[in-house]
Amino acid sequence: MQDTAIDLPARRGTVIPVREGQTIRIVNVHGTQVLDCWAFDRADPSCCMSMEHTRSYNSRIVPRVGDRLVDNRYRPMFEVVSDTSPGIHDTLMCSCSAGIYARMGHPGHDNCEDNLHQALAGAGLAVGFTPAPFNIFMNYPFSPEGEISRKPPVSAPGDHVEWKCLIPEAVVVISCCPQDLTPINGESMSPCGARCLIFDR
Amino acid sequence: MQDTAIDLPARRGTVIPVREGQTIRIVNVHGTQVLDCWAFDRADPSCCMSMEHTRSYNSRIVPRVGDRLVDNRYRPMFEVVSDTSPGIHDTLMCSCSAGIYARMGHPGHDNCEDNLHQALAGAGLAVGFTPAPFNIFMNYPFSPEGEISRKPPVSAPGDHVEWKCLIPEAVVVISCCPQDLTPINGESMSPCGARCLIFDR
Repeated sequence: MQDTAIDLPARRGTVIPVREGQTIRIVNVHGTQVLDCWAFDRADPSCCMSMEHTRSYNSRIVPRVGDRLVDNRYRPMFEVVSDTSPGIHDTLMCSCSAGIYARMGHPGHDNCEDNLHQALAGAGLAVGFTPAPFNIFMNYPFSPEGEISRKPPVSAPGDHVEWKCLIPEAVVVISCCPQDLTPINGESMSPCGARCLIFDR
Repeated sequence: MQDTAIDLPARRGTVIPVREGQTIRIVNVHGTQVLDCWAFDRADPSCCMSMEHTRSYNSRIVPRVGDRLVDNRYRPMFEVVSDTSPGIHDTLMCSCSAGIYARMGHPGHDNCEDNLHQALAGAGLAVGFTPAPFNIFMNYPFSPEGEISRKPPVSAPGDHVEWKCLIPEAVVVISCCPQDLTPINGESMSPCGARCLIFDR
């Protein structure tokens, strides 16, 4: 077993290559940091992890341990093998973006959508669209009537999720959400970093 | 006021141009037909109606009368101005696709994703991805825990929704869902057509 540790800097996006059979552990080091996650097939980056396909595949809004994270061709990319957090994550919401911050009166603000594309470009990849993200540790609960509210995370420092890779080569991108105008990343509104570990098992 | 009627053939996708200020009425002629809907900005088809942005904008899973349908730049494209159905629609699920039918043992089955791209191609447009659809009249309820179940529609013949267009030129695409292996389009499992009307008001 060989472990690789990758620091995920605050307010930025990071590309993490993961191969079939490896497990990626995504660690909420500080406890209240939301991580917007995407994944692409290295062999064809138009093939991406898809929240709408994942919800259909598992018949569930938020994946649990044992569920699969499915791509836009309905092919499992990852299996969720561990989650030490309370399991509160979001698949409903778009990532924050230039458009959202402009509308909030903060044009030019760091944002997860630009983080995704900048991180991909840094790895020599380009994807002409932004898939809906898997917003890990994000606490936007929905009522039985489908009303969505916005709450700070309930995860604790060190909480993590683990996904086992089911395709030959995946490119995971994680953006440490830079939203500092709302409590999405905790009441202190202080976005911070996180960490990944890759296990060869 | 000038009305344009457009028949939406069963099992196929249809492109419907809609201009700013016009209202599109989408009619469930037979009552239990699910309609997978997309919309694109004619000026830049990479700009599309986005379910994840629409949920965020309205803080609600399923849009209601008065809500906006928002594009992937967080810009309102339509306002929902009328809904004579019980308001049961879906924004959670991917459209049916070649991949889904292959997995069900029915490769080559008509599907909404191919319908979208064939309809766009027929109008001289190409979009390199498939946005999550607005599945009008689709009845896939979710439990408070987020478990999704699959039910036949509860809409009645003639039920319709109306959207007012807020951008200069939109391209709406509607696929009359060809799923005939499950009761998604009613217990008879007989997909049928629908109709659109465009009002100059």
